[in-house]
Amino acid sequence: MFILKIGGSSGINYDLIADDIAALVKNGEKMVVVHGGSALTNEVAEKLGHPPQFVTSVSGYTSRRTDRRTLEIFEMVYCGQMNKGLVEKLQSRGVDAIGLSGLDGRLWEGKRKAAIKIVQNGRRRVLRDDFTGKVERVNTDLLDLLLSAGYVPVLTPPAISYDGEAINVDGDRAAAATAIALGAETLVILSNVPGLLEEFPDEHTLIRHIPAQSLDKFMAVAQDRMKKKVMGAQEALAGGLTRIIFADGRVENPVRRALNGEGTVIE
Amino acid sequence: MFILKIGGSSGINYDLIADDIAALVKNGEKMVVVHGGSALTNEVAEKLGHPPQFVTSVSGYTSRRTDRRTLEIFEMVYCGQMNKGLVEKLQSRGVDAIGLSGLDGRLWEGKRKAAIKIVQNGRRRVLRDDFTGKVERVNTDLLDLLLSAGYVPVLTPPAISYDGEAINVDGDRAAAATAIALGAETLVILSNVPGLLEEFPDEHTLIRHIPAQSLDKFMAVAQDRMKKKVMGAQEALAGGLTRIIFADGRVENPVRRALNGEGTVIE
Repeated sequence: MFILKIGGSSGINYDLIADDIAALVKNGEKMVVVHGGSALTNEVAEKLGHPPQFVTSVSGYTSRRTDRRTLEIFEMVYCGQMNKGLVEKLQSRGVDAIGLSGLDGRLWEGKRKAAIKIVQNGRRRVLRDDFTGKVERVNTDLLDLLLSAGYVPVLTPPAISYDGEAINVDGDRAAAATAIALGAETLVILSNVPGLLEEFPDEHTLIRHIPAQSLDKFMAVAQDRMKKKVMGAQEALAGGLTRIIFADGRVENPVRRALNGEGTVIE
Repeated sequence: MFILKIGGSSGINYDLIADDIAALVKNGEKMVVVHGGSALTNEVAEKLGHPPQFVTSVSGYTSRRTDRRTLEIFEMVYCGQMNKGLVEKLQSRGVDAIGLSGLDGRLWEGKRKAAIKIVQNGRRRVLRDDFTGKVERVNTDLLDLLLSAGYVPVLTPPAISYDGEAINVDGDRAAAATAIALGAETLVILSNVPGLLEEFPDEHTLIRHIPAQSLDKFMAVAQDRMKKKVMGAQEALAGGLTRIIFADGRVENPVRRALNGEGTVIE
């Protein structure tokens, strides 16, 4: 059993990924899929007249400003078009997929951040109306129920707060939390680059192997969105996973290539 | 066990409905919820520059023209904003809801119509690129699995064709098919009117009771979208249900009122 996280950046080829999942499922592989939807959310938010905003925390992480309207648009894209689009691609290839958000059956539960400290134009500011948080509990009973019945769960943010509000959570870290909760050994994270790059965006500078104990050092190398992927990998390792692979989601057989060690392998 | 269909027309109060579902679930009632999203889909489709179109079949039924782009927008609203919005409302009231579309686990399977015959400007035309169909098979194993584990399934179109394509299906008729498949006795259909009206839209002309064997006669009374609700009721009766109630989704305690016989009761 492994966890497959598929990013939401442009360029990632969901058809090729669905082909590969179908081949793996035919071979009897069990997996849980987690996906994003960031690029399309930006596009739809623009069109709906509520353009995306990103904020940078005081510790240097970038995240989507998630007011209530953004959350609605987020759900439209992540849970609507992206999730059902992927479920359809999988079903049409013979994979019995079931798409769920973190709200459904309280699949991904966590605390909503009461306040987030950001830096804006060089000044510190506190946001209190943001709907973001972090997955702290995974409903493994529900996942086991579906996996035992032969379904492939296809999961996507948002998660749910302890008070029952939808909260935006990072998909890579949610995938890591899911892998830990299910006791999986491997987490594959597909994005629109071949892995962690020594000199982003030069793809020839791919870092092929990182020993688990030295992952910390690579945080400085990670750019932008890759920072959270490295953070997710750190959490996954701390939670007992033995292998995390950052790999290319734009190529043929992307999942099998990753499982065969193409990309950045952290172990 | 009963099936509750909540319409997607404007005016329907999802907060009051969620309150009522929570009270019923607290009392140990089991149910499956089915919802629509028509009004919001029209709004979003306009904003996204792909305005809704409706076609009238040669037999006089109106339905949404569903090309591929419409289907994407449909999924955004029905499976994204509406479904997750309702799941969130229920979860925040202590109801362990799980939202699914007909694609998930092939919950609602049926044939895609190869061609639909419509009347346009008085002339007959055939549409071949429409993604619509009818629910013919319900995955009751999946529903039983979730119900037995204590979840409240919250279902929404689209359904899935035998070839694995998403297809737009009528929500009322999908709810009827679900009720039949689960062997439910009662189907409650909430909309933005108090029930079937003798003289639409005069709400004082509510028809309070229709004996099952004379429902046919009332097809002529049904206006517009109500036609498909009556058709759904006919199918539900033919499939073994004993009671269908059309009731008002804008009022307090709408579900309990309906179950107590307020609205149009067909039995």
